[in-house]
Amino acid sequence: MDKGILIVLSAPSGCGKGTILAEVLKDEKFFYSVSATTRSPRPGETDGVNYHFLSKEQFEELISTGGMLEYAQYCDNYYGTPRDKVTEKLNEGRHVILEIEVQGAMQIREKCPDAVFVFIAPPSVGELRNRLVNRGTETIDVIEKRVSEAAHEISFAPKYDYVIVNDVLETAIDDFRSVIRAEELKAINQKNIIDEVLKNA
Amino acid sequence: MDKGILIVLSAPSGCGKGTILAEVLKDEKFFYSVSATTRSPRPGETDGVNYHFLSKEQFEELISTGGMLEYAQYCDNYYGTPRDKVTEKLNEGRHVILEIEVQGAMQIREKCPDAVFVFIAPPSVGELRNRLVNRGTETIDVIEKRVSEAAHEISFAPKYDYVIVNDVLETAIDDFRSVIRAEELKAINQKNIIDEVLKNA
Repeated sequence: MDKGILIVLSAPSGCGKGTILAEVLKDEKFFYSVSATTRSPRPGETDGVNYHFLSKEQFEELISTGGMLEYAQYCDNYYGTPRDKVTEKLNEGRHVILEIEVQGAMQIREKCPDAVFVFIAPPSVGELRNRLVNRGTETIDVIEKRVSEAAHEISFAPKYDYVIVNDVLETAIDDFRSVIRAEELKAINQKNIIDEVLKNA
Repeated sequence: MDKGILIVLSAPSGCGKGTILAEVLKDEKFFYSVSATTRSPRPGETDGVNYHFLSKEQFEELISTGGMLEYAQYCDNYYGTPRDKVTEKLNEGRHVILEIEVQGAMQIREKCPDAVFVFIAPPSVGELRNRLVNRGTETIDVIEKRVSEAAHEISFAPKYDYVIVNDVLETAIDDFRSVIRAEELKAINQKNIIDEVLKNA
C-alpha cells in the first residue's frame, strides 16, 4: 500500500495504553502524532515531545484555516491535533497514531472516514478499580471519580471499529498488531498490489 | 463473541490455498464447510469428506426450500453449500470456512452481509505460471489456460474484503490469522464483552 493508515486510539486511564503504545512504536512503520496545546509547559515537558506548545493566536489561526483535525477547550486552554504532520506522515506511508479522548475521536470520525478507531478497555471496571487501588497513589474519592469517568468512556466503545480488552498485555499488543495488519490487507488498501499481481497476465 | 465468523475464501489454483487451509484448520476454532454435489464420487472420494454426494432430487429439494447458501451447475451437475451445517457451527461459536470460486462467493456476498471475504493471490501471474511450469505435471496449453483463468479470478479480488498475497507461506498464514483475529475484535462482534466490562461500574 502507498498511504499509511490513520489510527485513532482511545482508552480510559489505567488501561495500559501507554505500555501498549511504547511497544508498538518500536516499529518505525508507526508515527505518534503529538498534540498541540495553548497551556504553558509544565516542568520537565518538552515542546514537540509532550505537546506542541502554541500561542492562543497560533492555535486560533490553525482552527480558522482548517489546520486542526480536531480540537477542544478545557479550562480556557485549547488542545488539538495539527493536520499537517498527520497528512505528511500518512503520505510517506507511515501509520499515524492519534491518542485521543472519546469526544475528539468522534470529531475525527466525521472528518476522516478512512481512519481506524481502536478502543482499549480494561477487563472490567471492577478490575480497573482494583488496579488503581493497588497502585496506592490516589485517594478513594479520586479513584471513584476516575472509575466513573472510565465507565462513561467505555460506553463509547461500540462506536469504535475495534475493541481490545487489555487483560494480558502481550495478547493486547498482538491484538493491536493484528488489527493494523488486517487493515493493511484490506482490498481497498491493496489496489496497487492487485494491479501488480495482474501484470504480464 | 458468541457466534462464529463466516469466512469465504477464494484463490486461483496454484496459490497455496490448500497448504494455508491445512495449517489454519489445525485450530479447532475453525470448521471447514464441505460442499454438496450431484456428480458421482470418484475412486477414493468419501461422502462427507470430499463432498456431500446428493441425488439430483435431494439437491433440488434443498434449493427450493432455501437450504443452499449458494449453488451452481457445471456439466449437468449441481455444486453448492448446504446452509444447515454452516448455521449450526456458527451458532456453536466456530468460524466456518467456505472454500469457493468467485461467482459462488459473490452469491454469498448478497445473502450473508456479515461474512468475511478473503482472496488469496499469487505474488504475480508470471510467478503462478512459473510454479505451474516447475511442477511439470501439465502441458503448456493447460498451463496457459489455468493462468488466464487465474487472471480472470484475480480481477475479482477488489470485491473481497481482504487480499492476501501468498509470497512467503508463513507470512500468508500469519496474515490469515491476523484478519480473523481483527474480525473477532470488531466492536460489532464484542457487544457482550463491552457489557461485561461495564458490569459493576
